[in-house]
Amino acid sequence: MELITKINKLKAVVRKTRCAGEQIGFVPTMGALHEGHLTLVKRARTVADRVVVSIFVNPLQFGQGEDFDKYPRNLSHDLELLTRCGVDYLFAPAAEEFYPKDFETSVAVSDLSDKLCGKFRPGHFKGVTTVVAKLFALVEPDIAFFGQKDAQQALILKRMARDLRFQARLQVCPTVREEDGLAMSSRNVYLSPEQRRAAPVLYRALGRAAGKILEGERQTARARQAALDLLAAEPSIRLEYLEIVDTATLEPPELLRGHLLIAVAAYLGQTRLIDNLLVCVP
Amino acid sequence: MELITKINKLKAVVRKTRCAGEQIGFVPTMGALHEGHLTLVKRARTVADRVVVSIFVNPLQFGQGEDFDKYPRNLSHDLELLTRCGVDYLFAPAAEEFYPKDFETSVAVSDLSDKLCGKFRPGHFKGVTTVVAKLFALVEPDIAFFGQKDAQQALILKRMARDLRFQARLQVCPTVREEDGLAMSSRNVYLSPEQRRAAPVLYRALGRAAGKILEGERQTARARQAALDLLAAEPSIRLEYLEIVDTATLEPPELLRGHLLIAVAAYLGQTRLIDNLLVCVP
Repeated sequence: MELITKINKLKAVVRKTRCAGEQIGFVPTMGALHEGHLTLVKRARTVADRVVVSIFVNPLQFGQGEDFDKYPRNLSHDLELLTRCGVDYLFAPAAEEFYPKDFETSVAVSDLSDKLCGKFRPGHFKGVTTVVAKLFALVEPDIAFFGQKDAQQALILKRMARDLRFQARLQVCPTVREEDGLAMSSRNVYLSPEQRRAAPVLYRALGRAAGKILEGERQTARARQAALDLLAAEPSIRLEYLEIVDTATLEPPELLRGHLLIAVAAYLGQTRLIDNLLVCVP
Repeated sequence: MELITKINKLKAVVRKTRCAGEQIGFVPTMGALHEGHLTLVKRARTVADRVVVSIFVNPLQFGQGEDFDKYPRNLSHDLELLTRCGVDYLFAPAAEEFYPKDFETSVAVSDLSDKLCGKFRPGHFKGVTTVVAKLFALVEPDIAFFGQKDAQQALILKRMARDLRFQARLQVCPTVREEDGLAMSSRNVYLSPEQRRAAPVLYRALGRAAGKILEGERQTARARQAALDLLAAEPSIRLEYLEIVDTATLEPPELLRGHLLIAVAAYLGQTRLIDNLLVCVP
């Protein structure tokens, strides 16, 4: 694996790869890699000729008072994991290399970015679309891989890539979970042992709502309430939102039908976790 | 010259050209071509292996009540002119091809977009950066050519291309003028004979301010007033703004020094014209 920190070097490698007719698979990350990331990398390895991973803790997608400064960073461990997965190129630029002085450009997807997490993290998705647009312009991937855990992010990035007609197709891979159901996340390391024991209630709550729907419940409010009841029983959980929405519009439907996303965001202490489940009602 | 209306076809041509190691020169236009455009095309022809021109009247950059519907369109005449200039590919997509249904992505450059014309045409430059970002993603130009008449547009697009690290370098070519000094513009056809006779006062006013500066005037207000006096004497002119600003920040300087842009926007009847002059005070 070759470690690349400079944009010019990356562009040269990309140009050579593309003109050799090789397909580029790309996994953008913020590092602190876990099995969820590695699943994306392995998937890329099976479908693309060349695999590019990026590690860049993107300041633009953190709000004031969020955890940019303490976000876990562990480059040497990440390097070891990626080498073992057969990654060809790791792009890990410094912030000054990636965002030049007086960087003033932003890329945004309206509407979808204002729902769910967007209500509580203003500017977050604009930061995500901006960094990924620039990464796509640099890496020119044929396929880019994202995790289903960040369902809204994946939906927004798909829209951006389609709208601006980037080459990249986006592939969304299933959420990887711990044995007790907790979705893997770099932020799980923030959890105290007690919080860690409580955290799987998020997944159980999603499962309860999904169960209600699969049993025939068609009233959004009732399916949602079943999940809320379970969360209310866990005092260490501070709920931000739990919504059942249409997977295409992220709007709650009148009646539960079609492709649905049950999404939750909650705090355990200072740690904000998100999770979701997909349910299809034919 | 090959006329291309479909994005997939364009992408295929671009891929082939790039992988043959040929440099792509690109001139994005809204059609209704005049000598200003053709100067850009000829410039591209001298420096690039392949010349791509686009003609697309971009709805996103027109505000409510602006002239999108009546903007001059004359594709057959444009085709003839471009063929004579040795253009390789003309990309002229339909609006539905370029902007798919539910297009929700925007590209914006903050700060610079809010000054000069941006104050009077909210959303205009966001429309410009969005269309050009998508065109750059499609055409992958090595060099793109813009006219100095749209000085603010060129500055904003340079910033966008640098920030997102598009391959394209931007080359800004001098404004082409009629014999009486009026800057060429597709909108000049809107002018009545009387308005057409009055229109060169814009250029003369810019020239008067530039003259004051070159004669040693260092007070922005005084140099500006000299130009305003000239405009005030022409009753058919309705001034929108006349500003003397730093070319990098578009902010008026305390004292006139360095690289300065004298920019004007004014209405003659319903027709909005812009023009500018560059002045350097060592």
